[in-house]
Amino acid sequence: MANQLSLENWTCPLPLRNYPTIVMGHGGGGKLSNELVENLFVPAFSNDTLATLGDAAVVEMNGSRLAYTTDSFVVRPLFFPGGDIGHLAVNGTVNDLAMMGAQPRYLTTGFILEEGLPLAQLGVIVESMAAAAQLAGVAIVAGDTKVVDKGHGDGIYINTSGIGLVAPGVTLAPDRARPGDVVILSGELGLHGIAVLSVREGLEFGAPIESDCAPLNGLVAAMLAASPDIRVLRDPTRGGLASSLNEIAKASKVGIAYQEKLLPVPAAVAAACDMLGMDPVYVANEGKLVAIVPEAAADIVLAAMRGHPLGANAVIIGKVVEQHPGVVVARTGIGGTRIVDLLIGEQLPRIC
Amino acid sequence: MANQLSLENWTCPLPLRNYPTIVMGHGGGGKLSNELVENLFVPAFSNDTLATLGDAAVVEMNGSRLAYTTDSFVVRPLFFPGGDIGHLAVNGTVNDLAMMGAQPRYLTTGFILEEGLPLAQLGVIVESMAAAAQLAGVAIVAGDTKVVDKGHGDGIYINTSGIGLVAPGVTLAPDRARPGDVVILSGELGLHGIAVLSVREGLEFGAPIESDCAPLNGLVAAMLAASPDIRVLRDPTRGGLASSLNEIAKASKVGIAYQEKLLPVPAAVAAACDMLGMDPVYVANEGKLVAIVPEAAADIVLAAMRGHPLGANAVIIGKVVEQHPGVVVARTGIGGTRIVDLLIGEQLPRIC
Repeated sequence: MANQLSLENWTCPLPLRNYPTIVMGHGGGGKLSNELVENLFVPAFSNDTLATLGDAAVVEMNGSRLAYTTDSFVVRPLFFPGGDIGHLAVNGTVNDLAMMGAQPRYLTTGFILEEGLPLAQLGVIVESMAAAAQLAGVAIVAGDTKVVDKGHGDGIYINTSGIGLVAPGVTLAPDRARPGDVVILSGELGLHGIAVLSVREGLEFGAPIESDCAPLNGLVAAMLAASPDIRVLRDPTRGGLASSLNEIAKASKVGIAYQEKLLPVPAAVAAACDMLGMDPVYVANEGKLVAIVPEAAADIVLAAMRGHPLGANAVIIGKVVEQHPGVVVARTGIGGTRIVDLLIGEQLPRIC
Repeated sequence: MANQLSLENWTCPLPLRNYPTIVMGHGGGGKLSNELVENLFVPAFSNDTLATLGDAAVVEMNGSRLAYTTDSFVVRPLFFPGGDIGHLAVNGTVNDLAMMGAQPRYLTTGFILEEGLPLAQLGVIVESMAAAAQLAGVAIVAGDTKVVDKGHGDGIYINTSGIGLVAPGVTLAPDRARPGDVVILSGELGLHGIAVLSVREGLEFGAPIESDCAPLNGLVAAMLAASPDIRVLRDPTRGGLASSLNEIAKASKVGIAYQEKLLPVPAAVAAACDMLGMDPVYVANEGKLVAIVPEAAADIVLAAMRGHPLGANAVIIGKVVEQHPGVVVARTGIGGTRIVDLLIGEQLPRIC
């Protein structure tokens, strides 16, 4: 059991970039986040399931394969164009389950409320969660509420966990990408991150930008019905497309190369990123997925995606290669290539 | 989808005691907590499983009965005599599963870290969680980390969710108490709450008081092996024994009567409660359970409890009665009776 004595003697099993305290970047989905996970959480909670580091764990229960995941949501502000924290909390967990090929079934929700939160705001957020759950076809079956003193929260933080059944024959995992596979993106990049940023900072970018927050389980079901051979699915949230591709490349020990000019970046997102000095491939999405698919199945999966409203603009953006294992490269518009690494921290804190 | 317009028009389905904002008592496990759950969460998330309001939901997955629960932990301070927030976060969820008669199997953990948290503190807490998980026989299979800006957290908040299998033939639920049943308490009351309070407020009560935080799944397994006929199990955490008994009385539409003089209250807890004007039956416990057992099975269940280290001081404290349905009464030392109601808020905020 821990006590203050052992606190003084505690040493990190591996150096965490020499930060003695938590900084915002530890929550950004980039290198600092990964270091916490790889050097602290995985060694401490040592088990094979956690070590796979998919969007959700896949565990065996009484002969069934269950996908099981958790996510806390601390987005600021609580309401943004196209959604709110409640909507995000349901869809985020639904999508993490869907990325393992599971049909999401049950969710739990844990609220950390700050003293002084208007009850009417809580009411709207709860009803938004209920509507999102109904749309995604999941039931919220258990919950918990804690209240913290004013000045120790930010209105509301929400944790959702979720479980779902993985269909027999489906095995999606970040380490299954193989050279020759095709990389498919389900639609436009950057909408969630720029929508939140615009309202947070009071920016106007001409055309209004709305978050793409949406449940992806229907799209995934259509894709798996077209071909159960899909290797990897990932929803590029915190850290954006670049981080998802890096995680896949590292887990599968393959290279990934994409064409920059094939990326669907809405004009408003491109303009906002230009103005702010950000790169759309690092901006969070909440209703998109990236799929790694064997070349032979690419056409049929792409057609299935385009037949679904949330995949109507799906596009092949690149491929998995044998060269440069663990590294993602972009072929740029002017014919060069550049390495697309993980960021150290994040471009946008508290985006989800 | 929610937006700021509907926020203005939102009205609560039932009046919430006319509080326009969240107050600390909404997180206290008393009447205000219950009003949030009954008037807001249950109607919004409408489903039969949530409405049973057990410590964990019991859901069907592919023919198996799974117990599934979530809890967020915001205890202050993070380290206290006998435990820490990590230890508490694992045992709290393990115990909620155990109260449904499930063998806990897998946990998830969601961290909300405040910028500036010393990494060494996080390290100790994580190792404490790992040790508690090992002791309880559960694996932490998925996790999430978010970081919030300094001044919007309190070092660390932890959510844990958990799943476990409910054995065939076991049906524990808060609405199963019947007149004639016996009420058994597994041991001494009030240790967790007073231990946290003592370090928070710098109080000294003579003998040091340590939290009773412990995993109850082993004790429950021994009890169910002795008799699968146990009707209700509940761990009296926030709101203490009084709140657990009230919830059972209300759910089962029965009265509950206990003898005050039979309650095992350690002298140090009694002295601390005397000094602070608190009642031990409302103080939080983290390693105790209350069991409602048919009279015919009471002796065998009690013997099984006393044979387990965490039930060595188990004692029958009262019975379920037909009279005063929904109401808990205590027979006092001087021969009278008093109604033991739910508190409005709580005696001790942020106790778990």
